[in-house]
Amino acid sequence: MAFRMQFLSDNAAAVHPHVWQALKAADTADTPYDTDALSRRLDEAFSELFEREVAALWVATGTAANCLALATMVQPHGAVLCHREAHIEMDEGGAPGFYLHGAKLVLAEGDGAKLTPETVRAALDPIRDDVHQVQVHALSLTQATEYGRCYRPEEMAALTSLARERGVKLHMDGARFANAAAYLGCVPAEVCGDVDALSFGCVKNGAMNAEAIVFFDPALADVARYRRKRAGHLQSKGRYLAAQLLAMLEGDLWLVNARAANAAAAEIASAGGRRLLHQVEANEVFLRCTAAERAALRAQGYGFYDWGPDAARFVAAWDTTEKDARALARAIESL
Amino acid sequence: MAFRMQFLSDNAAAVHPHVWQALKAADTADTPYDTDALSRRLDEAFSELFEREVAALWVATGTAANCLALATMVQPHGAVLCHREAHIEMDEGGAPGFYLHGAKLVLAEGDGAKLTPETVRAALDPIRDDVHQVQVHALSLTQATEYGRCYRPEEMAALTSLARERGVKLHMDGARFANAAAYLGCVPAEVCGDVDALSFGCVKNGAMNAEAIVFFDPALADVARYRRKRAGHLQSKGRYLAAQLLAMLEGDLWLVNARAANAAAAEIASAGGRRLLHQVEANEVFLRCTAAERAALRAQGYGFYDWGPDAARFVAAWDTTEKDARALARAIESL
Amino acid sequence: MAFRMQFLSDNAAAVHPHVWQALKAADTADTPYDTDALSRRLDEAFSELFEREVAALWVATGTAANCLALATMVQPHGAVLCHREAHIEMDEGGAPGFYLHGAKLVLAEGDGAKLTPETVRAALDPIRDDVHQVQVHALSLTQATEYGRCYRPEEMAALTSLARERGVKLHMDGARFANAAAYLGCVPAEVCGDVDALSFGCVKNGAMNAEAIVFFDPALADVARYRRKRAGHLQSKGRYLAAQLLAMLEGDLWLVNARAANAAAAEIASAGGRRLLHQVEANEVFLRCTAAERAALRAQGYGFYDWGPDAARFVAAWDTTEKDARALARAIESL
Amino acid sequence: MAFRMQFLSDNAAAVHPHVWQALKAADTADTPYDTDALSRRLDEAFSELFEREVAALWVATGTAANCLALATMVQPHGAVLCHREAHIEMDEGGAPGFYLHGAKLVLAEGDGAKLTPETVRAALDPIRDDVHQVQVHALSLTQATEYGRCYRPEEMAALTSLARERGVKLHMDGARFANAAAYLGCVPAEVCGDVDALSFGCVKNGAMNAEAIVFFDPALADVARYRRKRAGHLQSKGRYLAAQLLAMLEGDLWLVNARAANAAAAEIASAGGRRLLHQVEANEVFLRCTAAERAALRAQGYGFYDWGPDAARFVAAWDTTEKDARALARAIESL
Repeated sequence: MAFRMQFLSDNAAAVHPHVWQALKAADTADTPYDTDALSRRLDEAFSELFEREVAALWVATGTAANCLALATMVQPHGAVLCHREAHIEMDEGGAPGFYLHGAKLVLAEGDGAKLTPETVRAALDPIRDDVHQVQVHALSLTQATEYGRCYRPEEMAALTSLARERGVKLHMDGARFANAAAYLGCVPAEVCGDVDALSFGCVKNGAMNAEAIVFFDPALADVARYRRKRAGHLQSKGRYLAAQLLAMLEGDLWLVNARAANAAAAEIASAGGRRLLHQVEANEVFLRCTAAERAALRAQGYGFYDWGPDAARFVAAWDTTEKDARALARAIESL
Repeated sequence: MAFRMQFLSDNAAAVHPHVWQALKAADTADTPYDTDALSRRLDEAFSELFEREVAALWVATGTAANCLALATMVQPHGAVLCHREAHIEMDEGGAPGFYLHGAKLVLAEGDGAKLTPETVRAALDPIRDDVHQVQVHALSLTQATEYGRCYRPEEMAALTSLARERGVKLHMDGARFANAAAYLGCVPAEVCGDVDALSFGCVKNGAMNAEAIVFFDPALADVARYRRKRAGHLQSKGRYLAAQLLAMLEGDLWLVNARAANAAAAEIASAGGRRLLHQVEANEVFLRCTAAERAALRAQGYGFYDWGPDAARFVAAWDTTEKDARALARAIESL
Repeated sequence: MAFRMQFLSDNAAAVHPHVWQALKAADTADTPYDTDALSRRLDEAFSELFEREVAALWVATGTAANCLALATMVQPHGAVLCHREAHIEMDEGGAPGFYLHGAKLVLAEGDGAKLTPETVRAALDPIRDDVHQVQVHALSLTQATEYGRCYRPEEMAALTSLARERGVKLHMDGARFANAAAYLGCVPAEVCGDVDALSFGCVKNGAMNAEAIVFFDPALADVARYRRKRAGHLQSKGRYLAAQLLAMLEGDLWLVNARAANAAAAEIASAGGRRLLHQVEANEVFLRCTAAERAALRAQGYGFYDWGPDAARFVAAWDTTEKDARALARAIESL
Repeated sequence: MAFRMQFLSDNAAAVHPHVWQALKAADTADTPYDTDALSRRLDEAFSELFEREVAALWVATGTAANCLALATMVQPHGAVLCHREAHIEMDEGGAPGFYLHGAKLVLAEGDGAKLTPETVRAALDPIRDDVHQVQVHALSLTQATEYGRCYRPEEMAALTSLARERGVKLHMDGARFANAAAYLGCVPAEVCGDVDALSFGCVKNGAMNAEAIVFFDPALADVARYRRKRAGHLQSKGRYLAAQLLAMLEGDLWLVNARAANAAAAEIASAGGRRLLHQVEANEVFLRCTAAERAALRAQGYGFYDWGPDAARFVAAWDTTEKDARALARAIESL
């Protein structure tokens, strides 16, 4: 592919210079797995970020983060309720079925891949409370959603309260948590609300291959540690993952990078007008455009994914330049 | 721990400079997962190494490599036969049970953690061929073994031939394949014999977090690709893993590094004399020594693991210096 | 419950006198599991029924039959395509997730719980052929469907041909296969078409606790035998299950019983008129009726399940008397 | 086989007349699954038997009973400690791996397949308390053991106390619980001690296909109910299973039958002398005998299993006649 391609996805962007420095700085032998000095600093670093006692584990991918978190909340005979277009349903190759030992995903509706108390109730209520039907043990939502939409603190509160009322645990897929935080302008604790565990994404935001699972209930973290090893995700040179996470937190790099990506997306969105399929609140832009229009953009060197037959998805990353975003915006306007 | 500690394990050593260079060189956005240019070179690079058509997948850990390989060979109602002290039995936190969906490990004996046709037969023969007993679908052996012993080509041939005769697949855990190759002085194809899949270890040998699964039967690789994603091991910036593997192969760095580690181990072993529990053929040295002797060594700054109440394990890595190895040897002699 | 209740479900009816006789006749010690003389006659008996070589296994429940059959066709990383209201999706407590080790159910639409080539294609086509999405390995359909509708031979042919074209296996949930056969008036081989395995239901049709899994591909049966034991479904006194199945086949008792149930349902349906939600082709009748109407029927002693807020389901069994069916029909007419 | 064969196993004996009566008496339609009047009496009936509040579930096989019980106690990343020759390890076709989602069996030693606090400690102590090794979550023992030996109340107390001390749950495989109770002459509560769940066997003791899982902790039973359905073990005509269990309890039929079987075994054992491999405490007799001796016995019409190359196993059932037992005893004496 000869595309400049930087709008395909944030998941293939370069590694941020500060992360590289942290990686290099970790290049002294230490004890293996998660017993090294850097890994042992994670709980504290994330506790500070979320202003409460949390336990944080590194893991290499968002899929592993989501599924290890959910595995601490859902028994094999239970289910996770999530949006019909949630990443765990659409794009994880059946990982939830694997990690949860056959537990089910129960799907709910919602504009922009956002769950609401109404759509959650509509999915939960028809499930009879008997052994013939699979009972929901946890609710998983994505912040920002798969369509780049953000849950406001009051929306999180309503969902949390519903989850508590129904006795189900709450997980947040935060692959783009940083972009949501940048958009909402709230403190991290408000961005995630009162969930039980959060997949705190870094790979799409400047890291190489480290995500954090943040457990707000330490008992869940204890289970997750066993499950991480059992899933082959306990890297022996774990210090290189811890280093990435700490670098992302240092000086709020996670937020700085997300703001840059969001700004680039906003620039592109400014050219969207009536083409916009979803309000742009994070770093993804979904636009109606015909096959011919997409071909025209590609001919100018822009890489992006088709989104069904009549739309396209453009994703900005931490390293998308203002110049490129502006150029794309102009190209869209000229269609 | 104030130990110089470099004999604890090769699994926490530094990353080799050539690997660092390759990582940095990969720091340009490319397509995600394993669709990038580097990942797409792996099949060819490993086919060249093994002088036959193979399919090679990157993965972050040896546990994932072993279990993904075995998952292509063993049905959930089957079993893997391995040595009683195999890493998959002792140290993978139950990962085989997870990846193989409840399949069993059937344990066999053998000096130095080496299987022999006799011990394999002794484990297989009592299993009645009926549904009440779990049937063995694959044999897994470790090269070099958990005690640093190597299978000679003729030993591999005998085991392979037994496996074929019994209709079971063959997997090699090559976490220290390089050390075995360095010791045996054979071409890679002879070091692994006619196995169906090989976990080709790099993390203990200078990489950061990349191992290769080499499939000698491409149909198995097709299954493994789905299972890797499903296990959350398909990293989106896979190019950084591919880069590590290619760097290890470039100029036979894998072999160069292993020779250095083996040489350091040989130096230490030269002081072992009657203390040696196992012939030293790779980079691990197991020595009888009392608690007092171990304390004395530690007091001099040497880090290593106890191996039961009366022994210690010393592991040399690619970056163990000749000087350190010699110093340790002298310290042992002086006990 | 003081209801006469016989329209609640066919799954709680009495055991047919011929089945009782066969059970008693089996009450002489024989070899255990499926090695007894009766179990060994099953393959032949079902081969005769289906006019081709099949392998038949007994099992105690329809859920086990369905899931053991599917487990021979679907890898853990794959999926089963079925109707949105299929029994395996709605009423088996997550058993497919358990037996298939986390494989997924992909849901398709269709009136009366019937799949069509169009709805199957609509469910299959959006699945990208890559590792991020779960691939369909088998198609499962129910004959008669959960709404008592039957697939005609030409409909089966179209679905079979589509399945072959897409490289997926085909399973039929025949919990009410007999009722479909009675309605269609075809030979059994035409009722099931060219599926790979069939759950041949008997419990709803006069047996106590025996269903048959009929494998049209003997290699699948070999796997199923191991999986049946592993699932704790290999009863030691298996002869009592084999006896039930043989009794059902003897003199076409399965067909005789199903005809009786269908006739009773037809009698009830005759009173349905515009209330009928689905054409009545087997032994289930779904009628629109208000809560008040349902209360009125119950007050007259009729037991049945509500079907959502505005409907009711009436099921006739092999032992539903003509008199009772007629009485219910009259009661419905009088509403 | 032309053998009179009644010493092969108690698992293929006839059904007791009282059980037949109870089955026939259940032949009136009732509500399905476990909602019928008979199933709803089980908790009370077993609570009376064990003189404390218990929850009891029917299930068709001992394998399902054992594994469903264990599945409530052991997380997928944990292990069950059992004897090296326990039924769950040797003869259940890998069912524990299936039901426990890949959890491991950790094997311990002990004469006559009996665990002791010493052998349990010897198996537990080497397991490091870290994520690399699989931790034991439950202990399973068999009463009477696979070699027909019985745990005395004080032995149960010692094991229970050890289990509590180590924080592991306790399960008893009571496939031949009745035979142990008959031998020990204790009340049922003493025969099982303070275990968390008991598989209360009936199939080997006069039932057709019903076992009870008795939960001494009701919270475990709630989980088991979901898991039973999910395993396809919730029969729709469950009343026929409940009827069998109630018939076994009625008038202590379970004890009467076991006493008869034990008496027959004692008769056979009386001829054993120095041939006896294990003290005969239940209904199984293991005798040293050569291949020629076994052939001689078989020529006289006695059916039994070889037990390795130099021994044979004879099992008496509830319906073994005194005459047959005496005849076998004489035949053994005459060898």
